[in-house]
Amino acid sequence: MTSLTFSRQLTIEWAHCDPAGIVFNPRFFEFFDTNTWLLFEKALGIKPRDLAKTLNIFSIPLVDARANFLKPSRFGDTIEVTSRIGTFRRSSFTVEHRVINNSETAVEGEEVRVWAVPHKTDPGKIAAAAIPAEVMSRFGVATTAAPGR
Amino acid sequence: MTSLTFSRQLTIEWAHCDPAGIVFNPRFFEFFDTNTWLLFEKALGIKPRDLAKTLNIFSIPLVDARANFLKPSRFGDTIEVTSRIGTFRRSSFTVEHRVINNSETAVEGEEVRVWAVPHKTDPGKIAAAAIPAEVMSRFGVATTAAPGR
Amino acid sequence: MTSLTFSRQLTIEWAHCDPAGIVFNPRFFEFFDTNTWLLFEKALGIKPRDLAKTLNIFSIPLVDARANFLKPSRFGDTIEVTSRIGTFRRSSFTVEHRVINNSETAVEGEEVRVWAVPHKTDPGKIAAAAIPAEVMSRFGVATTAAPGR
Amino acid sequence: MTSLTFSRQLTIEWAHCDPAGIVFNPRFFEFFDTNTWLLFEKALGIKPRDLAKTLNIFSIPLVDARANFLKPSRFGDTIEVTSRIGTFRRSSFTVEHRVINNSETAVEGEEVRVWAVPHKTDPGKIAAAAIPAEVMSRFGVATTAAPGR
Repeated sequence: MTSLTFSRQLTIEWAHCDPAGIVFNPRFFEFFDTNTWLLFEKALGIKPRDLAKTLNIFSIPLVDARANFLKPSRFGDTIEVTSRIGTFRRSSFTVEHRVINNSETAVEGEEVRVWAVPHKTDPGKIAAAAIPAEVMSRFGVATTAAPGR
Repeated sequence: MTSLTFSRQLTIEWAHCDPAGIVFNPRFFEFFDTNTWLLFEKALGIKPRDLAKTLNIFSIPLVDARANFLKPSRFGDTIEVTSRIGTFRRSSFTVEHRVINNSETAVEGEEVRVWAVPHKTDPGKIAAAAIPAEVMSRFGVATTAAPGR
Repeated sequence: MTSLTFSRQLTIEWAHCDPAGIVFNPRFFEFFDTNTWLLFEKALGIKPRDLAKTLNIFSIPLVDARANFLKPSRFGDTIEVTSRIGTFRRSSFTVEHRVINNSETAVEGEEVRVWAVPHKTDPGKIAAAAIPAEVMSRFGVATTAAPGR
Repeated sequence: MTSLTFSRQLTIEWAHCDPAGIVFNPRFFEFFDTNTWLLFEKALGIKPRDLAKTLNIFSIPLVDARANFLKPSRFGDTIEVTSRIGTFRRSSFTVEHRVINNSETAVEGEEVRVWAVPHKTDPGKIAAAAIPAEVMSRFGVATTAAPGR
């Protein structure tokens, strides 16, 4: 089974760059965030703004993010950001992001997100819940959750 | 009567600057937005996050913003952003912002904001409402609203 | 003569939105900045990062920006940002930006920028210079500069 | 020997928050970046904008960044961001960042940066160089570099 990927091309804007003339690193975490929403839209056919309501969840909050910056990306470069689910666990999952610039990997990133639902007894809080198998199956990765939370 | 002002010093960060090594202009509109919240806190003694609930309004949404960039501000410069109400109209008001860098005016800005309440019959919408005289009086500007909306 | 326009569609991202769930206003000034670079690319056939070198200028720095926010834009909305030169003066020009969301004008903006060259005797400074007629002519607006600086 | 730390308090602004009303994660990477510059200023007594020139380096570019988000930070919260060097290697080092919000750790982050100098024969490139022992000693961490690059 092939894992579903979502790819997006974008051209580096003046707005993205720092005084060294390269993309300021927090922008890549914005690119990753947007790609995760769009990966879910592609897999589930649900518009990002309807995701929580349609799936009856609170959201898919980020608990961990990391990026490895291998090559700088400059004003005017066209990059491709490709994202896919790495692993589904019971109530969390990883999203892997890869930025290609001029045929080379420029950035490798990973997010860990939680399948969060409103807390049953404390409405101001959220709780992790089991990711439905039918959701997992839409991403083309193993439908049996990996060990761990 | 002297108009109340709120002033804040900040040092220009790498994060604020563009490839020309100067503050990227949208950051000034962030600085203005933050100063407006803090001006209200100073005048009314209400924490920004409690403003809407305490005043029984929806918010003070921005309808117009402008800035005149006179001198560039660079990484490491310490600037002072000073803000005050320009004019109160019936249901809108202006906030004037001035950025001083090295004793010179670097940026002059102005926001127009609306005193917005939930719409009476359509809960998804908002409506402009009259700004209470007791709010206006706390800013040290005329308590009789200027002509116009 | 019809004025050249550059239009770009973009979908509002989670990253663009504030706690009210609408685009945080400084993001529109980012959208305008990017559109100005792309308008110049369309008119002159010069990549944004080569603009200064090719035209033998320092840059086209912003001296004034304003926006009028008419309708909010929300997470997931697809907007169209259309930009064109308003007026060329001797050494400055205006760029007009219009954001359409769901067939309605959501934001109207305007930038004033300067045609800046390195200062002849002080290399750390810049000076305004006359915009070449052949540049103006590429935008489909009057090639005789309007009065004023 | 106690490792030098740099701490900075900041209050979460409307500008930092996303539609969930909490800090949008890329903002924490901005906070980390700024703290790293200020940690170097505290340790070495060199203004951030003079760092490269004074140390005769290109810069201290980021090659890896990660953050673990433990508790959300909301509009109006006052947080404290504390940073220190984790490890010096021959030509790279880690910076550890901790965000405290209401006496609890809200975010833990880490950056890996490189001591970069202009390439000797290719002026458009940079190369990693050995971090001077007198720099390392100013941070109160071991002056013998840890194994590895």
